Amino acid sequence: MAIRKYLDGKNVLVINSGSSSLKYEVYDMPSRTSLGKGTVERIGSDDSFLKQSGWNGTVDLRQPLESHGAALTLMTEALTDSQNGILTTLDEVWGVGHRVVHGGEKYSSSVVIDDEVLAAIEENIELAPLHNPANLTGIQESMRLLPGRLQVAVFDTAFHQTLSPAAFLYGLPRELYEKFRIRRYGFHGTSHRYVSAQAVRFAKRAVENTNVISCHLGNGASITAIQNGRSVDTSMGFTPLEGLLMGTRSGDLDPSIIFYLLERGYSAEELKTLLNKKSGLLGLSGISNDLRDLEEAVERGDRNAIEALDAYAYRVRKFIGAYAANIVKVDILVFTGGIGQFGTRMRERICHRLENLGIVMDYRKNLENGNREGIISKDYSPTTIIVEPTNEELQIAIDTYDLGNVSAT
Amino acid sequence: MAIRKYLDGKNVLVINSGSSSLKYEVYDMPSRTSLGKGTVERIGSDDSFLKQSGWNGTVDLRQPLESHGAALTLMTEALTDSQNGILTTLDEVWGVGHRVVHGGEKYSSSVVIDDEVLAAIEENIELAPLHNPANLTGIQESMRLLPGRLQVAVFDTAFHQTLSPAAFLYGLPRELYEKFRIRRYGFHGTSHRYVSAQAVRFAKRAVENTNVISCHLGNGASITAIQNGRSVDTSMGFTPLEGLLMGTRSGDLDPSIIFYLLERGYSAEELKTLLNKKSGLLGLSGISNDLRDLEEAVERGDRNAIEALDAYAYRVRKFIGAYAANIVKVDILVFTGGIGQFGTRMRERICHRLENLGIVMDYRKNLENGNREGIISKDYSPTTIIVEPTNEELQIAIDTYDLGNVSAT
Repeated sequence: MAIRKYLDGKNVLVINSGSSSLKYEVYDMPSRTSLGKGTVERIGSDDSFLKQSGWNGTVDLRQPLESHGAALTLMTEALTDSQNGILTTLDEVWGVGHRVVHGGEKYSSSVVIDDEVLAAIEENIELAPLHNPANLTGIQESMRLLPGRLQVAVFDTAFHQTLSPAAFLYGLPRELYEKFRIRRYGFHGTSHRYVSAQAVRFAKRAVENTNVISCHLGNGASITAIQNGRSVDTSMGFTPLEGLLMGTRSGDLDPSIIFYLLERGYSAEELKTLLNKKSGLLGLSGISNDLRDLEEAVERGDRNAIEALDAYAYRVRKFIGAYAANIVKVDILVFTGGIGQFGTRMRERICHRLENLGIVMDYRKNLENGNREGIISKDYSPTTIIVEPTNEELQIAIDTYDLGNVSAT
Repeated sequence: MAIRKYLDGKNVLVINSGSSSLKYEVYDMPSRTSLGKGTVERIGSDDSFLKQSGWNGTVDLRQPLESHGAALTLMTEALTDSQNGILTTLDEVWGVGHRVVHGGEKYSSSVVIDDEVLAAIEENIELAPLHNPANLTGIQESMRLLPGRLQVAVFDTAFHQTLSPAAFLYGLPRELYEKFRIRRYGFHGTSHRYVSAQAVRFAKRAVENTNVISCHLGNGASITAIQNGRSVDTSMGFTPLEGLLMGTRSGDLDPSIIFYLLERGYSAEELKTLLNKKSGLLGLSGISNDLRDLEEAVERGDRNAIEALDAYAYRVRKFIGAYAANIVKVDILVFTGGIGQFGTRMRERICHRLENLGIVMDYRKNLENGNREGIISKDYSPTTIIVEPTNEELQIAIDTYDLGNVSAT
């Protein structure tokens, strides 16, 4: 058995409980050291399995799991596996941080979970029917299996609660906002918050005097304008469907297209699936939602792939311009997420000809930087372009640790 | 009877045949002098009426009109009214220019109408079910009443046929474009083309070396990026619902909102009406779609009116930024349409803090200029801001005249 070096000793377990999967990671805080992480997949089926890797080895378990409760129980077994576990006993878990997708208008920051928070997460199921129920189950099971620990909720939406009405209101009858709470919420907040703060630090600037445009380009993708540390606009809206063209999601669309297709025999369910799962890069290219496949197709001269990547980059550029117009001066442009970190050529496509906005990429630096944290703009560029690997789990661990210490004082 | 001074003598009748109304105007060409104009309203009802005013007086007629054919016949009577008409006989009509909303992907400029054009307009009824049928009827009746004249179709969509795939493709499965022709078409093309050309001339610049962002802000509203005379992007899309927040239209929206409301009992028909007729400034303010009413409400401190106007301006700013990012350098920013020409304070709201994009309004000039053609930016502003009254009818007359002379040579 490997010997774990002594760290600070406050272990935060981060849990991201999805509809049929569970991801978790253990951080030693405040050293911010990951001790290991795991995933449980295909919960609710006969072939569910767990994979874990940590400082002490890997654990692979395969057994039918009928519920999130069973999955979390299996996770605790893997965590404390006597041969290759991450922890000796569960007593070493000091706090638990939970990713929660939708905090509605109630939460503008992470919170210690109590009955009121549980009720609010339940209330927001209506706004996030696919995510909040699984998030809630994860919390409830975690409270049962790890009683007495600090439990913290970190919301995807919270960072964007600082948007002004001009940015969050749709051009709809006001009663739809008042009655159904239809407004722009925005998502990926934890990632945008993390990478923008990291980038500001990396550029040796002060948060309270820095404007950032943050591009989270993964299979889901969103872009956020951050003024002095506060989110002022973001491209995802009422749901994660709006905004940029994504891997399989359409992003912005003339709303009339939905009516047009309903009139031609598509059902609402079919259209939801079409817009969420069959559109975006996948739909436009007809090939794949994976940037690498598409770059290969572009090399072969595939016209649909070329158009898909052009459309993708064009949309990102539109949002960069739109936000530049509204935050006056852009000090930092951040790229993160799978495409943002690894899509060197995509970053080039996006920044090409943005010079007039004061965004001057150094194409050589961009190429050489790859996916590491680094500056990829010219020294004289008014806007510093930074690649910043995202780490939502770490941000959740930080929030949990910070809230624990605030509560303690 | 007033005496009509001798002009160039080629009279072009411009016809805009809507679903229940008809507008017309007579231009002397190439002098571009309007000799008079009229409207017929409530076609198909018992209380339809015609109003005409011209160089020689006014004509008011009131009679039930069951069809566009009857309305056009009444128009010819008014045009040649022996006391107060615009023309002595219909022989004085040299050519007829028709506004047609949808030219699909077939027409990128105005065309002389022949059987092929008639068939294409009919084919595009599917894309513009409210407009193209009335446009088509207007053309057919005009050909019957004014045989032997040059008849020209001027399409709202034609100017935008120069958009690149990156700008016109939605992030949808490609077969929806191939099968249903779902793409961004854009509208208001005749207005954007007219005001951008006028503004370039007014600024004493050359079209082939000038980039323009044109804001047509009326009850319908759209914004277009024009590079060296060619439209490269525009905010209206597959239909005129997309883009800016408008008088009663929502503009851009998270598509998921439609599914959310369908699931809560709204019908598709109700939602179409809601998004087209009850949204926008009217819906957000709960007061009116008229800018003057809302400015008054703002004076009274009405919060909903303030938020509606802020949201309106914010959206326009977003598009200005988005297009600035994609046309590299913005030489001219044009305002036109009811709100663009008369909304002095709205122009101020929009341009406030756009200085970093090189758009520096002179607030005093803006105030003093009012709705006239004029420059309202600082002398040192990299982008020249121009107010330019639109005149789609004149542009249609110009196109008709030009096509007649091309045909003749």
